[in-house]
Amino acid sequence: MDSLIYLAPLAGIVSLAFAAFFASGVLKEGTGTKEMQDISLAIQEGAMAYLNRQYKTIAVVAIILAALMFFLLGDDSGKIAIGFIVGAAASALAGYVGMNVSIRANVRTAHAASKGLQEAMSVAFRGGAVTGLAVVGLALLGTSGFYIIFGDVDLVIGFGFGASLISLFARVGGGIFTKAADVGADLVGKIEAGIPEDDPRNAGVIADNVGDNVGDCAGMGADLFETYVVTVLASMLLGSLILETYPNAILYPLILGSVAIFASIISMFFVKVGSDGKIMKALYKGVAVSAILCLVAFYFVTDSLMGDMRLYYASIVGIIIMVLMVVFTEYYTSTSFRPVKTIAKASETGAGTNVISGLAIGFESTILPVIIIIAGILGSYFIAGGATDPALGVYGIAIAAAAMLSTTGMIVALDSYGPITDNAGGIAEMAKMPEEVRKITDALDAVGNTTKAVTKGYAIASAALGAMALFADYRYKVNLEAGSLSLDNPIVIVGLLIGALLPFLFTAVTMKAVGKAAFAIVNEVRRQFREIPGIMEGTAKPEYGKCVDIVTAAAIREMVIPGILAIFVPLLVGVVLGPEALGGLLIGIIVAGLLLALTMNNGGGAWDNAKKLIEDGQYGGKGSDAHKAAIVGDTVGDPFKDTSGPALNSLIKVVNMIAILFSSLFIGKGLF
Amino acid sequence: MDSLIYLAPLAGIVSLAFAAFFASGVLKEGTGTKEMQDISLAIQEGAMAYLNRQYKTIAVVAIILAALMFFLLGDDSGKIAIGFIVGAAASALAGYVGMNVSIRANVRTAHAASKGLQEAMSVAFRGGAVTGLAVVGLALLGTSGFYIIFGDVDLVIGFGFGASLISLFARVGGGIFTKAADVGADLVGKIEAGIPEDDPRNAGVIADNVGDNVGDCAGMGADLFETYVVTVLASMLLGSLILETYPNAILYPLILGSVAIFASIISMFFVKVGSDGKIMKALYKGVAVSAILCLVAFYFVTDSLMGDMRLYYASIVGIIIMVLMVVFTEYYTSTSFRPVKTIAKASETGAGTNVISGLAIGFESTILPVIIIIAGILGSYFIAGGATDPALGVYGIAIAAAAMLSTTGMIVALDSYGPITDNAGGIAEMAKMPEEVRKITDALDAVGNTTKAVTKGYAIASAALGAMALFADYRYKVNLEAGSLSLDNPIVIVGLLIGALLPFLFTAVTMKAVGKAAFAIVNEVRRQFREIPGIMEGTAKPEYGKCVDIVTAAAIREMVIPGILAIFVPLLVGVVLGPEALGGLLIGIIVAGLLLALTMNNGGGAWDNAKKLIEDGQYGGKGSDAHKAAIVGDTVGDPFKDTSGPALNSLIKVVNMIAILFSSLFIGKGLF
Repeated sequence: MDSLIYLAPLAGIVSLAFAAFFASGVLKEGTGTKEMQDISLAIQEGAMAYLNRQYKTIAVVAIILAALMFFLLGDDSGKIAIGFIVGAAASALAGYVGMNVSIRANVRTAHAASKGLQEAMSVAFRGGAVTGLAVVGLALLGTSGFYIIFGDVDLVIGFGFGASLISLFARVGGGIFTKAADVGADLVGKIEAGIPEDDPRNAGVIADNVGDNVGDCAGMGADLFETYVVTVLASMLLGSLILETYPNAILYPLILGSVAIFASIISMFFVKVGSDGKIMKALYKGVAVSAILCLVAFYFVTDSLMGDMRLYYASIVGIIIMVLMVVFTEYYTSTSFRPVKTIAKASETGAGTNVISGLAIGFESTILPVIIIIAGILGSYFIAGGATDPALGVYGIAIAAAAMLSTTGMIVALDSYGPITDNAGGIAEMAKMPEEVRKITDALDAVGNTTKAVTKGYAIASAALGAMALFADYRYKVNLEAGSLSLDNPIVIVGLLIGALLPFLFTAVTMKAVGKAAFAIVNEVRRQFREIPGIMEGTAKPEYGKCVDIVTAAAIREMVIPGILAIFVPLLVGVVLGPEALGGLLIGIIVAGLLLALTMNNGGGAWDNAKKLIEDGQYGGKGSDAHKAAIVGDTVGDPFKDTSGPALNSLIKVVNMIAILFSSLFIGKGLF
Repeated sequence: MDSLIYLAPLAGIVSLAFAAFFASGVLKEGTGTKEMQDISLAIQEGAMAYLNRQYKTIAVVAIILAALMFFLLGDDSGKIAIGFIVGAAASALAGYVGMNVSIRANVRTAHAASKGLQEAMSVAFRGGAVTGLAVVGLALLGTSGFYIIFGDVDLVIGFGFGASLISLFARVGGGIFTKAADVGADLVGKIEAGIPEDDPRNAGVIADNVGDNVGDCAGMGADLFETYVVTVLASMLLGSLILETYPNAILYPLILGSVAIFASIISMFFVKVGSDGKIMKALYKGVAVSAILCLVAFYFVTDSLMGDMRLYYASIVGIIIMVLMVVFTEYYTSTSFRPVKTIAKASETGAGTNVISGLAIGFESTILPVIIIIAGILGSYFIAGGATDPALGVYGIAIAAAAMLSTTGMIVALDSYGPITDNAGGIAEMAKMPEEVRKITDALDAVGNTTKAVTKGYAIASAALGAMALFADYRYKVNLEAGSLSLDNPIVIVGLLIGALLPFLFTAVTMKAVGKAAFAIVNEVRRQFREIPGIMEGTAKPEYGKCVDIVTAAAIREMVIPGILAIFVPLLVGVVLGPEALGGLLIGIIVAGLLLALTMNNGGGAWDNAKKLIEDGQYGGKGSDAHKAAIVGDTVGDPFKDTSGPALNSLIKVVNMIAILFSSLFIGKGLF
């Protein structure tokens, strides 16, 4: 093995070191008044309580799965099972570390806001950067580490599946938690009791703040941890097929990831708000620097390792997809452009037209991303030489996906910035901080809404591309006769139908779960208003913890069925209908999942900002009928963009991982 | 050619004769007071004005397409172009005849309601039966007639494409018209002015009543006309591939269709409301008799023509799919079961939870239909012998689809019954008929809502199966190398993605069109309230015709872009990306279109009935906050179930027809 490979774990360790450096910087900041600290502490306790219960529940599932793997997967089953456990643990650890810093960065951001925008922004961004660097650091360390230790790419699959498992449950559980708390708190607070968002008299308000962290920070972290791992892994697996011509084909994606980590770290120091006060510009500068540094570094890496610049061009395709996904998502979800304005305008004729308009925008918003993904698939395949050598072509697709993920560190930092500033705003509101501080936290939070939307577009596009690469591995693994995955075969069509059905089913189940859990919160907040005298007058404090407990229990309970569904349906289809049907299922789930997720992420983001546009005084302004209509749309958009949509990212990948992992078993047992 | 083939045009003519018989019976009924006649006349004028303009616009497109075909399609292009024109004209004629009777049956049903339920029901059902029999009669007459005249199944494709074209525009244009009028009239009437539905003071009320006819009667008629033609055609084309073993394989689907027509006619005489007053039971009895008679007749037809009873079993699969689709759709959209109750319950916490709940039910409702379609595909394929002879297997799928369509006459009758009773209710309301008459028209109308929902489930399932059969034809036509349609091929995946994207895009465009056109109605009704004094007091009449004109113009304008999109995207994909991508596109559009259409049809139907459940006094009753929330859901559901959802039926089929029609051109020009 080339000694260059040690660069990958080294880069992972460097990334973790910088995560620790940023974390210590954040933790040194002041935490403000006692009141602020109390609120922050309540959020910390709630978030940690949730995360502990979530991981405990996943641990049970993980142990059962590990045992199954150990007994079923033949010779190397021990190694795969260990990889699986470590993969799950690494993903959990990344989530844990990131969350721990996020929920401490929020109060420090609020405190720093009293000094100024630059200071507050610096705390919030560094807080987010911890999660970003922890995610990529542990992902690259784990993937390269297991490859070095086991010396066989196939045995790294266990690690990837561990990452998938956590991602699935973190996305589903976290998504249900965050939106049940948000919707539930809003329904009683804003609508019934007529008190503002983040009002401390609302017993659900801490649960809502906790939810931002478990959804966006831990959930997105686990999601991109998984995408990163499985995409690098898929590239390595596909690389193992072309080793004769490209002896460094397995090493190449790891080294791309390594240099990308250094690029991410450097770019983080470029994120500074200038004197113009433009926050989004500062964040985008970071992304741009990271992408440009990668482009330069990839040139030299490709030249020296592969000697075939077609693969460099494929990596450029990946970077272009990244940029365009950000641009398109921002177009569809920002208050500055037609889509959000259309929804805001439609709110003037009521909730019905607001919802119709938002749904139409959601459906419409699939076009540009799908076209860019199509162009990306075709581009990277043919640029890499797929016309003459299909194996090289799909390797090109995988490299494009890996290149797209080179900015993961920055993207996760951007995303985790969201809940930190959201919480900071909440703390400032609840602690009744002065107006000028609130203005700063509001400005930071407004940008947080955009970064959350934009990173979702990135996450689903990279999930789809990564899953395509995994699918290519599946094909080679099951080694079917040429053409047996053809659309001529009704079994393939049936697989496609089942695969396309799954995202619809998953969406139904997760949306219903949010409804049920939100209803439990509504009842609890109502009960507290009724039974605890003095809440409305501010003389008594609501029992925030009760709401956190309720939504924690509900989210954990509701995440189990979709999780098990995602794991066992592909196994069942594989065993009963065979490898052709399973192949169809994999593609069906990618295609339908991608389209539905785009519809829901963008529709939800657009609804959210249409409400914000009205609250900013346009189309009738706060308190108008248009505003009430926009609140309905936002409520519908909440589970779209934060529960069901993101959960599909994980669904797409986990199903492909299962297919790869168990296909060897099926083949061994003569089931395929 | 076997002389038995003349049974098919004969059955078609008999069907038309019975349509005439039922029509003359309906027209002999009394038309009530002068006031009722005036209202009915206004609806008639509006409906005819719309239909004339719609057909005129389609004629322009049709002539251009016919010219294109004539010049591009080589040797037999003249025959294909003639078939195309006749197919379009036949579909238009069926719509025209059906509508003409429907818009006369409405006032006669209202009048008969003063005599009793049985009498009113008889008029309404016979009115619907005219459309049903006209549709199947003209469809079978045209398909068999062109086959007899040209002696070549391939030349019947032109006729099928003509049917497709009308279906596409009738669905899109009619769907936009009906929901723009409905939503627009409700927005100003019910919500702004606070007057009830169907109130004569609302200037949009006639347009709303016209819309019911152009949407459900003409739209659904054209849709099922097309499904019927293309499915029989697809079976004949697939039959032409197995003529060596089954010399009657082309004849067989035509004879199945012929005996099914006789079964439909007989069964119509069984539709009578008993002394228990159960209307739905009477209608279902008709469907059941029709299905049972078909099952018996198919046995003897199969035995004598094919001598292979496996094909008889395949036809049974088709009938079972029909029955189960009706059952499942009713489960998801009827007030008696969990789904609708869940939505009604969710309305108690506001419009947001109502919409979330309705969307979740819509997504969930895809499961059972997709499972039944999967089982149907696998069942009919393997029962027919697909394991050893794939060509026979796909012929089995086509026969199952054709068998499913054997009840088309009854189903269209059921569907057209909907707008007749809906209009009858409107006329009774507007003409201030006595309370007991209104009770009868309400009872009939309530059932009409169910039949409209149930027939939509049937329509989309048959569209999907019919399109699958067309896809099989496409494969044989383009005659690709084995395995070139494999999911290994990135071009196929790209085709799938484009195909799956189209229904999302189509949904976005049609939903936006409804919003725009509804807005025009809102402004016009507002203007009339403002400028015509005495409307609200009932001393002056609103100008109903203006609203009809506005929504007519808007619907015609808005139907053009989606129509052209549906026609040119597949051509473009075929020419630019090749036959593999086009094959992927066809399957992508079927899979995504089926799932989205089910979601929207069932979600929309469930929302509608959740509102009805509340209006019947449950969950707060009329005027409660829950009722207001349910109205929002119903408004969202309107374009779902009556515009975008049904439009996908046509989209699925027309794209497959285009692929078949032009593939020979592409091959000839060396483009494939």
